[in-house]
Amino acid sequence: MELAYYAGEFRDINEAVIPIDERGHQFGDGVYEFIRVYKGVPFSIERHLDRLERSAKAIFIELPVSRQELKDIIHQAMEKSTLKDADIYIQVTRGIAPRNHLFPDVPAQLALTIRHPRQTPEEAYEKGISTLLLEDERWANCYIKSLNLLPNLLAKQAAASKGCKEAILVKDGYITEGSSSNVFAIKDNVLFTTPATRKILSGITRANVLECAQEQAIQIREQNMTPSFLKDADEVFITSTSVGLLPVSKIDEVELPTFRPVTVALKHAYSLRTAGTKAYQ
Amino acid sequence: MELAYYAGEFRDINEAVIPIDERGHQFGDGVYEFIRVYKGVPFSIERHLDRLERSAKAIFIELPVSRQELKDIIHQAMEKSTLKDADIYIQVTRGIAPRNHLFPDVPAQLALTIRHPRQTPEEAYEKGISTLLLEDERWANCYIKSLNLLPNLLAKQAAASKGCKEAILVKDGYITEGSSSNVFAIKDNVLFTTPATRKILSGITRANVLECAQEQAIQIREQNMTPSFLKDADEVFITSTSVGLLPVSKIDEVELPTFRPVTVALKHAYSLRTAGTKAYQ
Repeated sequence: MELAYYAGEFRDINEAVIPIDERGHQFGDGVYEFIRVYKGVPFSIERHLDRLERSAKAIFIELPVSRQELKDIIHQAMEKSTLKDADIYIQVTRGIAPRNHLFPDVPAQLALTIRHPRQTPEEAYEKGISTLLLEDERWANCYIKSLNLLPNLLAKQAAASKGCKEAILVKDGYITEGSSSNVFAIKDNVLFTTPATRKILSGITRANVLECAQEQAIQIREQNMTPSFLKDADEVFITSTSVGLLPVSKIDEVELPTFRPVTVALKHAYSLRTAGTKAYQ
Repeated sequence: MELAYYAGEFRDINEAVIPIDERGHQFGDGVYEFIRVYKGVPFSIERHLDRLERSAKAIFIELPVSRQELKDIIHQAMEKSTLKDADIYIQVTRGIAPRNHLFPDVPAQLALTIRHPRQTPEEAYEKGISTLLLEDERWANCYIKSLNLLPNLLAKQAAASKGCKEAILVKDGYITEGSSSNVFAIKDNVLFTTPATRKILSGITRANVLECAQEQAIQIREQNMTPSFLKDADEVFITSTSVGLLPVSKIDEVELPTFRPVTVALKHAYSLRTAGTKAYQ
């Protein structure tokens, strides 16, 4: 059963629980995390909660519950839903107060939903996805996982309107990231990805994949990539909590090679992590 | 009486009316307007509704009501509230659907609140306000009046933490606008303001003030201003629907002249408009 949590209670996911003066609703004034549960285990939960705390701190929101309380709520949600595999969405906003730009002196509000996991078709993992390069029009602090996602939505939808599954964003001549993913390339057996500056979200899957690469002694270079470098790569893939590792078969009009040995190896190593055959937090 | 409108009904302003899966709440996926009612007249309502339509169109939201229906709702709100002077806040989001970046095929949602007008202390109009110059960290399409306001909130709060009433934003070496206002300067009897490109919101008060200046044969130059130009100006003021024209007395550590003849003349002309002594839409 899918369900929601808001204002201290578990509820039907469609219940009206938020007043108009919620700062999430009026300003996007909050942060979020998205955690995938595999076989009853919320994968990389500590890393997600670390990042939630970092994001909240960056915009001066004090989380309304302790880390242990939040973990208890997540585990209650898993129990009540009885879902063994699930998507957990957590959102914290600055709270409820008459609309005013200045921060109000009210408690932050926690919202959570637990759902059946959204599945990416197996075909996409085999064939890879088409992507579209678009100008990165977002703000300067994309390292914060904030609710201000309108530019991401517009980019994703623009890509979809051209038959692509993801928009890959370009800022000042360099790849930053996808509209909801990080971007990796392989060239001459070296793994490249955009460095985690304030221009991109430091993805949890990104971090796990970099560790998988290290374990396999794959050479890593966190450095900026131009669009032409990406289009000329041997392999390209994107990562996110939702899709894991997903190969890219096409960038704009450029078809990429279909032989992807490094991507396959990394995807296998990552799947071992999510399957819990090793204890990863 | 202050009240709200959501999902087709008038309601108590504090009522929980929004489910967690509202795209306003999860993505800031919507646009808004803020209209001031003076003595029973929603000032410049046509301009506000024009802009609401432009903003919605820019992010591909189809308004859920016609213009006439929206005006009817606004007038019903004024009647039911019995407020003669009021702040009306209108928000349109892409609607309610399970969280997914891609646009769902659901109707847009309209929310509205009507409240007693927020008053700026008379002293601020006499003395002027202190302002702080800050880097403009917002996205590329600030001409859209979207709900993605986190950078504006952070700038306003940063200014407030230094005792300032407004943050004036600087992008690529030039003034764009305030965190919730447009910026004007007077130098040698010429009125300067940032041109209305996609980098700033084309303010309704800004437009009214430019017309007031034309009527008074004040020379106007819509051109980019550097911080040092602003600090060296004879007069500086900000404009917004909420504050009207508000003089600036200080930018960072620089005190501006307290003799403000052009500001006073324009403020007077603007107050005649809001008082309805001429029929302005």
